[in-house]
Amino acid sequence: MTQAVPMTEIWRGDILESVHSGHAVVCRPDGEIVHAWGDPEAVVLPRSSSKMIQALPLVESGAADAAGLTTQHLALACASHNASKIHNDMVRDWLSHLGYADEDLICGPQEPRDIAVRDDLIRCNDPVCRVHNNCSGKHSGFLTLTKHLGADKNYVSMDHPVQKAVLTVHEELTGETSPGYGIDGCSAPNHASTLKGMARAMAFFAAAREGQGPRETAAARLRDAMATHPEYVAGEGRACTNLMRAMGHKVAIKTGAEAYFIAILPEQELGVALKIIDGGTRAAENAIAAILAKLGVLDPAHPEAAKYLDAPIRNWDGLQTGRMCASSALR
Amino acid sequence: MTQAVPMTEIWRGDILESVHSGHAVVCRPDGEIVHAWGDPEAVVLPRSSSKMIQALPLVESGAADAAGLTTQHLALACASHNASKIHNDMVRDWLSHLGYADEDLICGPQEPRDIAVRDDLIRCNDPVCRVHNNCSGKHSGFLTLTKHLGADKNYVSMDHPVQKAVLTVHEELTGETSPGYGIDGCSAPNHASTLKGMARAMAFFAAAREGQGPRETAAARLRDAMATHPEYVAGEGRACTNLMRAMGHKVAIKTGAEAYFIAILPEQELGVALKIIDGGTRAAENAIAAILAKLGVLDPAHPEAAKYLDAPIRNWDGLQTGRMCASSALR
Repeated sequence: MTQAVPMTEIWRGDILESVHSGHAVVCRPDGEIVHAWGDPEAVVLPRSSSKMIQALPLVESGAADAAGLTTQHLALACASHNASKIHNDMVRDWLSHLGYADEDLICGPQEPRDIAVRDDLIRCNDPVCRVHNNCSGKHSGFLTLTKHLGADKNYVSMDHPVQKAVLTVHEELTGETSPGYGIDGCSAPNHASTLKGMARAMAFFAAAREGQGPRETAAARLRDAMATHPEYVAGEGRACTNLMRAMGHKVAIKTGAEAYFIAILPEQELGVALKIIDGGTRAAENAIAAILAKLGVLDPAHPEAAKYLDAPIRNWDGLQTGRMCASSALR
Repeated sequence: MTQAVPMTEIWRGDILESVHSGHAVVCRPDGEIVHAWGDPEAVVLPRSSSKMIQALPLVESGAADAAGLTTQHLALACASHNASKIHNDMVRDWLSHLGYADEDLICGPQEPRDIAVRDDLIRCNDPVCRVHNNCSGKHSGFLTLTKHLGADKNYVSMDHPVQKAVLTVHEELTGETSPGYGIDGCSAPNHASTLKGMARAMAFFAAAREGQGPRETAAARLRDAMATHPEYVAGEGRACTNLMRAMGHKVAIKTGAEAYFIAILPEQELGVALKIIDGGTRAAENAIAAILAKLGVLDPAHPEAAKYLDAPIRNWDGLQTGRMCASSALR
């Protein structure tokens, strides 16, 4: 197995304090590898980076249209959101429209990442809810498909029709029999693949065109929903949101826990999959920004890009004490 | 340079999701290496793992005794604390006794890690203070020595008598000319050394005996204060506190930002220094626990030890979705 490649450096003064290594691969829709760093065959869980795959059956089946979902809903179905007001309001309305409520979400309650929302809950002694879970949009999508199929509500079970549909599409798009799965932070199954397989799946999303059959149409709609509404995919201050805005809404990207990151480049018809082997999210953000700059879709001089490509590290008093930057392999 | 060694594995189901690598070394007081993993010559900043070195001039100078500091104060001077009530109350009383207040601390304000204290601040609209900074005990120690020396209050400047004393003792105990420094999260300078040099300094603390001159006496008092009062060194729920309790208060350990960890073993007269190269704190906690178990001072069957040696990973709904465990090199 090819060693992981140093990707991100953490400097404090003149001292190299920490280094993150990873694997990354850029593929075309037929699986041809265009660029690779480290081992394209590395097997790992994509976590939330695979949410657009998990949402594909929702759209392809017709369930999304039957429920009247907007492009914002589709972006939120692919989101790891901040639990800001726009996210919470939309999930609550969505559930209510389906005839469901907070307790019908199987994801556990998670303290909002949005500090203002968090502080309001604390001040009002309001409980942290399942709606606040960063995956509540994905789960609302699962519930929408569940209702459309008339299936039972335990939609995270591996033998539930929703999860069977997710596994089928995961294997078809990666071109691999998934070697295993894990249970995610939100209790849904998450399927492993090689990094190469995941990049190939993202290239499918990149090359998909509306009108070319139900699957391509669904993939194109999800991709475009993400790129058009980056604020629904993550939220203010987040790398996914900031970088999609910096790329002029032309590229869809998505982070996953434990430092997975994907990118979907429609104009180039390329897919990218990246894993920092130690799970350090800061490095995944730096490395995906560096790869997007290398591929010519992110202007490294854009102020939002600079925040990830050469990020100042500040201390509790606001002093800059160091910086995070890409290692030579990605520069 | 010797490659870093895989130290900690993160599993989700049957999938190895992430791996952390690091360097570690165990030394005797004369610098003899007893065990090493990776590169003992790796140069890195020890960050808060060096707080007992930074507190040594406070005690050796007589300033601590002149100010009437207790063993709890000495433990707090070496702490990265939770800003729990016991920490905040002691820092406020300490500052008041010196004739100082929150604004005299140079560390910036930091939201308390103690959730109950944090939530009380939010509910009462009280500001986050410098007292809440995890380093406020160290800074109170710096202020105590500053006052004792009649020096100006900018005690974090590299040419301030307090920081000159810290650099001198750092170089004498590591046996090295420090190759550089960085500015820490609390705005104080932090001096680099090889990992071997830091382990040697920790072995000095391990072998130090009261009555053997002012420096050994000061080192023994700080070490014993840490081991005796683990709740002042970190706080409830923290690895330093839990593991020192699990070792029966016989060993002093201290975490540092970016995944540094040290241990001081008085009975064995050994010092340990450990750095996870990617800065992942979870792995530093796992790896130091594994090394302490290997050295025979931590019972791996102790319930608090098990939390770090083979730690369940739980999701937002409380389900166990994976585990963190030591890699073969540390088992």
